[in-house]
Amino acid sequence: MLTRKIHFGALIHGVGGHISLWRHPEIRSNQSVSLEYYVQQAKTAEKGKFDLVFIADGLYINEKSIPHFLNRFEPVTILSALATATKNVGLVATVSTTYSQPFNVARQIASLDKISDGRAGWNVVTTPLEGAALNFNKTIKEHPDHATRYEIAEEFVEVVKGLWDSWEDDAFIADVENDRFFDPEKLHVLNHKGKYFQVSGPLNIARSRQGQPVIFQAGSSDAGIRLAAKEADAIFTNYPALEEAKDFYRRVKEEVAKVGRNPDEVLIFPALAPIIGDTVEEAERKYNEVKNLVSIEKALDYLGRYFDHHDFSQYDVDAPFPDIGDIGANAFKSTTDRIKREAKEQGLTLREVALREATPKPVFFGTPKDVADLIEKWFVEKAADGFMFSVAVPNALEDFVEKVVPILQERELYRKEYEADTLRGNLGLPFKENRYTKQRQLANL
Amino acid sequence: MLTRKIHFGALIHGVGGHISLWRHPEIRSNQSVSLEYYVQQAKTAEKGKFDLVFIADGLYINEKSIPHFLNRFEPVTILSALATATKNVGLVATVSTTYSQPFNVARQIASLDKISDGRAGWNVVTTPLEGAALNFNKTIKEHPDHATRYEIAEEFVEVVKGLWDSWEDDAFIADVENDRFFDPEKLHVLNHKGKYFQVSGPLNIARSRQGQPVIFQAGSSDAGIRLAAKEADAIFTNYPALEEAKDFYRRVKEEVAKVGRNPDEVLIFPALAPIIGDTVEEAERKYNEVKNLVSIEKALDYLGRYFDHHDFSQYDVDAPFPDIGDIGANAFKSTTDRIKREAKEQGLTLREVALREATPKPVFFGTPKDVADLIEKWFVEKAADGFMFSVAVPNALEDFVEKVVPILQERELYRKEYEADTLRGNLGLPFKENRYTKQRQLANL
Repeated sequence: MLTRKIHFGALIHGVGGHISLWRHPEIRSNQSVSLEYYVQQAKTAEKGKFDLVFIADGLYINEKSIPHFLNRFEPVTILSALATATKNVGLVATVSTTYSQPFNVARQIASLDKISDGRAGWNVVTTPLEGAALNFNKTIKEHPDHATRYEIAEEFVEVVKGLWDSWEDDAFIADVENDRFFDPEKLHVLNHKGKYFQVSGPLNIARSRQGQPVIFQAGSSDAGIRLAAKEADAIFTNYPALEEAKDFYRRVKEEVAKVGRNPDEVLIFPALAPIIGDTVEEAERKYNEVKNLVSIEKALDYLGRYFDHHDFSQYDVDAPFPDIGDIGANAFKSTTDRIKREAKEQGLTLREVALREATPKPVFFGTPKDVADLIEKWFVEKAADGFMFSVAVPNALEDFVEKVVPILQERELYRKEYEADTLRGNLGLPFKENRYTKQRQLANL
Repeated sequence: MLTRKIHFGALIHGVGGHISLWRHPEIRSNQSVSLEYYVQQAKTAEKGKFDLVFIADGLYINEKSIPHFLNRFEPVTILSALATATKNVGLVATVSTTYSQPFNVARQIASLDKISDGRAGWNVVTTPLEGAALNFNKTIKEHPDHATRYEIAEEFVEVVKGLWDSWEDDAFIADVENDRFFDPEKLHVLNHKGKYFQVSGPLNIARSRQGQPVIFQAGSSDAGIRLAAKEADAIFTNYPALEEAKDFYRRVKEEVAKVGRNPDEVLIFPALAPIIGDTVEEAERKYNEVKNLVSIEKALDYLGRYFDHHDFSQYDVDAPFPDIGDIGANAFKSTTDRIKREAKEQGLTLREVALREATPKPVFFGTPKDVADLIEKWFVEKAADGFMFSVAVPNALEDFVEKVVPILQERELYRKEYEADTLRGNLGLPFKENRYTKQRQLANL
């Protein structure tokens, strides 16, 4: 049996998920649309033997959105650009199932997979912000609710996977003598007719060396877990506390087993946004530098985003967190539930909630050894199979690769070289067999 | 006044538009999905100082489709990959307006434009083959007819251009001191409510250094010309005869003037698929090599494609071209009209039509000097502002760049170095001003 090893993904996220990081003197304010920055981050991830880089996404902005959301690369295009600038690292694109067509998404992710020679992944999301409806021929009221979005997502993924199997791997025989470019028996028409989608196929692109792109899923609600258990190869999640993360890990693996899949073949990647200092004091200094960049006005804006751009400036910031009922529950459900619960349990004021949400102190904090210890603990105690790294302070990825990665390698918890030349291979996931090839093999037994 | 210069685009098209070119011993049968081939072609185009590379597209295949169509890269993804492998050449992606959402297309092309630092273009097409409907939740009957498709396309382009102007060029001020990432006066909500589309905006990406991506249009019907005159910066067309091409050129320029635009700012690119030999005999040999790759069965399949995959094998191939009425007129209208007209005028049999359509003898044919002379003639006599090169025989682009380009440079008809660092700049088109910036400037006069 293979020893279990830690996996890492790097969320490349421009000026950051933090609302005011762009103000830091060591951050370039245009780095959300700087190819140079994205290439440099991807190459750093590759130097650190990361499994993958990951691009998040969103389909709606307004003047209160965080800076990175306002002006950023579209995921599939930037990852295709990174494909020619890197060699080993996987490329995972977030694309919504709420406002796209399965045929177009299947094609683009498959094309990224061929371009990168088997390194692509698709992070399946639904679009939470109802304002997105207005960008896609719909009214706010027509934005599907949480449950419907996940039902659509599930069928969407089924269609995409079906299209990806249009061509068996040995379909393109290029038999010059007999004038046969392909073997028609290896071409399959999907002919999907479902509740939300009717898609015939075939897709006009063949599979890559990994069979099918890796499927990520990024929602932590019950519906998200069910989708992931059924369809995903990996989950990106965000539980900051170890016990909660372990509980989530266990629930997912159980759900995976329940649908008859191998729990080892759905990898769980909690978020990892470490602040590393050569001393704890240096880490504290770095944290405070970022924390002090945020004004209360911006913090309230940021908080509002999770609650469907709710305007929190109407409340007394020093009064207890207001009772706003179910606002936002249709969007970022697990996050809004957590915020409301914590505010109540800990008796926090609106100001306290807003500033803390704007700059949460990361769990992974301290010296390189402290951070490596925590990563080991989360990994060994089964809160994580891997981690999705994101930048909390300037040069965070460079510092992590230089200082934390060698410790984990030394402990034999993490690779020194890539094991494989596909994303599936590096993640330790099996090649995804074509469904029709499998059927034929079974029939021939 | 600037001297008029020839422009070149290179259509990179894998194993080719020719149905049997893949059988040629000097063609790699997998080159439609070979990143290496695409990079090599783009770099060759750049070595030849081409304005742009161009990727065609289609959204429907069946077992009779030509080999390149069956298994090829999706345009936006492959061009994003080429962006990091090239430096100067423009990148023009074909994306349909029939089965996409304007918000997604606007974003992806804008993202390609930022990634390439001002080198992107969008070739606006409608999807002719009605079978595509089946890949996008629709029945064959719901596939919009030719006139409706162009009506949709026109509104689609308006929306995309509107979204592209969401941010004025100086919107992102990154004013650290006053905590202003952007100037809210420079952010604009489109709020489009039209017959086919309701799109609010703003788009979540800023403009590039060329203002907006270059708009190509590729239909030659009257509706196509009207759309181009109104919205396009360049037209890709395919009239093989000089007089017809001149007539088309004149009609387009007149139509452009009629809508109040400068006719010099809509460039016309006829197709150019030359066969070049050091002698005419060598060119003949190359032509015959390709011609002899095609069987009559494959030629009939190919012909059928223009007529909505009509089955021509049901007719006597040595009888006159059959009367098939209006079949296919809803798809490739200008091509099917030409084929029917020529068959009638020249009294051709079905076999003659099919073999000729499968391997038409190119107009641009002969020694490098012959081909250069013809290019000069077409350019000087105003049949063309530029040409869209495609590969008719192995190594066609390399031969053209090595042997024909220097003659045109010698004659001072073609650039020796890139004049600009954006696609608009190299095409001699002005920077596309932001509509709101323009309004503000006018208001301040």
